[in-house]
Amino acid sequence: MKDLYPSRIGQETKIVERKDPVIHSDSSQSNGPLNKKELDFYEENGYLLFEKMFSDEEVEIMKRELDGTMEANESREADDVIKEPGSNEIRSVFETHKDGSFFEALSKNERLVKIAEQLLGDQVYINQSRINFKPGFKGKEFYWHSDFETWHVEDGMPNMRAVSCSIVLTDNYEYNGPLMLIPGSHKWFVSCPGETPDANYKSSLQKQELGVPDNESMKWLVDQAGGRIDRATGPAGSVLFFECNTMHGSAGNISPYPRSNVFFVYNSITNKLQEPFSGKEPRPEFLANRENVQPITPVSGDITKQKTE
Amino acid sequence: MKDLYPSRIGQETKIVERKDPVIHSDSSQSNGPLNKKELDFYEENGYLLFEKMFSDEEVEIMKRELDGTMEANESREADDVIKEPGSNEIRSVFETHKDGSFFEALSKNERLVKIAEQLLGDQVYINQSRINFKPGFKGKEFYWHSDFETWHVEDGMPNMRAVSCSIVLTDNYEYNGPLMLIPGSHKWFVSCPGETPDANYKSSLQKQELGVPDNESMKWLVDQAGGRIDRATGPAGSVLFFECNTMHGSAGNISPYPRSNVFFVYNSITNKLQEPFSGKEPRPEFLANRENVQPITPVSGDITKQKTE
Repeated sequence: MKDLYPSRIGQETKIVERKDPVIHSDSSQSNGPLNKKELDFYEENGYLLFEKMFSDEEVEIMKRELDGTMEANESREADDVIKEPGSNEIRSVFETHKDGSFFEALSKNERLVKIAEQLLGDQVYINQSRINFKPGFKGKEFYWHSDFETWHVEDGMPNMRAVSCSIVLTDNYEYNGPLMLIPGSHKWFVSCPGETPDANYKSSLQKQELGVPDNESMKWLVDQAGGRIDRATGPAGSVLFFECNTMHGSAGNISPYPRSNVFFVYNSITNKLQEPFSGKEPRPEFLANRENVQPITPVSGDITKQKTE
Repeated sequence: MKDLYPSRIGQETKIVERKDPVIHSDSSQSNGPLNKKELDFYEENGYLLFEKMFSDEEVEIMKRELDGTMEANESREADDVIKEPGSNEIRSVFETHKDGSFFEALSKNERLVKIAEQLLGDQVYINQSRINFKPGFKGKEFYWHSDFETWHVEDGMPNMRAVSCSIVLTDNYEYNGPLMLIPGSHKWFVSCPGETPDANYKSSLQKQELGVPDNESMKWLVDQAGGRIDRATGPAGSVLFFECNTMHGSAGNISPYPRSNVFFVYNSITNKLQEPFSGKEPRPEFLANRENVQPITPVSGDITKQKTE
């Protein structure tokens, strides 16, 4: 398969134009939940933020499930449980959308799935899921990156036809390390220098060293955005959709307010993972789903009445 | 001399009420530049931000002088030149207000001095000065602290009768690690655990470990503020005055936008430094002025016509 977005193949950074559409459905014909204004915003900026898509009651239940999952994994040493650098505190638990869990049902909720389907113009499946916790006082920064760069090189995702969905379970303020996004950055692919080592994910999930843009490229992308850096702030229950290639990152969090969210990556069913373009072994299933991939049948309904096992 | 604010004397954190007034002049009689509304805001919140007190032309000159001072100190290894942790990049140069320098003249500028005099109800002198540079992409966080705690314990500043003045030379946005302040925190003194080692300043200027509030106290202070954490954002040329005991800190800066500022600490001439309350040797002159301390005679005029040597 032709590599449309070569990266980590030389010593240089190169910025090339995106080769895929941003919105894959024909917006004049699509009948999804998003209106023209929302589609235009997403196409232009590479993200969409919905304030309080979930009610306080629903958020409470999600938080309880998140806390339970965190606790259940507290003393488990495993690749899919990511600790803060230099600490024993859990930052993320991966692969939360399987085994009939609460989060599996949530990932199929039609409020989320129908938006993903409309943006991607296709049926979708979950390529990756996780719950994230960023503690107050000492939450570490996460440097700028495009998720697609890693998913393409290390997982073999062929095209830019995926969207990340983050359900924020805590109020996100300007001062507790909210996700920052460079609007419009999804229209460019930053081909990064370096070569991917074997099992790179073991260190990159704590601190990404490869596939990060150099200062000059970052400056260029921000300049294209007219100097804008947007932040995904809003009350708990808000939902952020961002394009798989949108450059994003977050500063540390010294405020007393922790942040947590549920994170699903929806991928088009016709954009399934191939062999990694790095030529290396694929990353494990918990980071990049390949097994039994089936399109999601959206489930309607109230999260508070959702079956949990 | 009685220690009004004991700290670093035991294993516990204790929050005690401030014993000094916040505004030391009689506001009904004072005829300084600040009006009643501004004085009330400072008394209540512990800081005052003036947007664009200096013109773009003045800022350009200050930036040139700052860059020149940074460059002149680039290869100088000295205690008064502070590097970023784990890097050779300069973060701060101290004691910039002496030897007839540009910054000495700036520190005497009446636009600044008359505000300090009005707040402190007295003639003032510079207790400490520095220029700060926080690089883009990799600017490190600075954790919450009250300057007064250190100045009291390590320098022997007896009372809370000093004010810090920060002239920002770069636009400060929400996303390039602006100074954050806890409004109202200046009304409480957080007595911290631990004991000050000899020459603590040699490490604390890079990363402060002692005299920082514990999580519970920080949470309490933010709760007193009704959950507010304010940020000193604004265009270059803005000036922030903040009370010596106001709890402040800043997150890291991964944006491409660096931050720089000029920093003067005005102290009341009747609040001169005594023996440090830690019982240790005083910190060096470049951090805490004791020699030839004289009240400033304010100088009027245009920064752009200021004599530089």
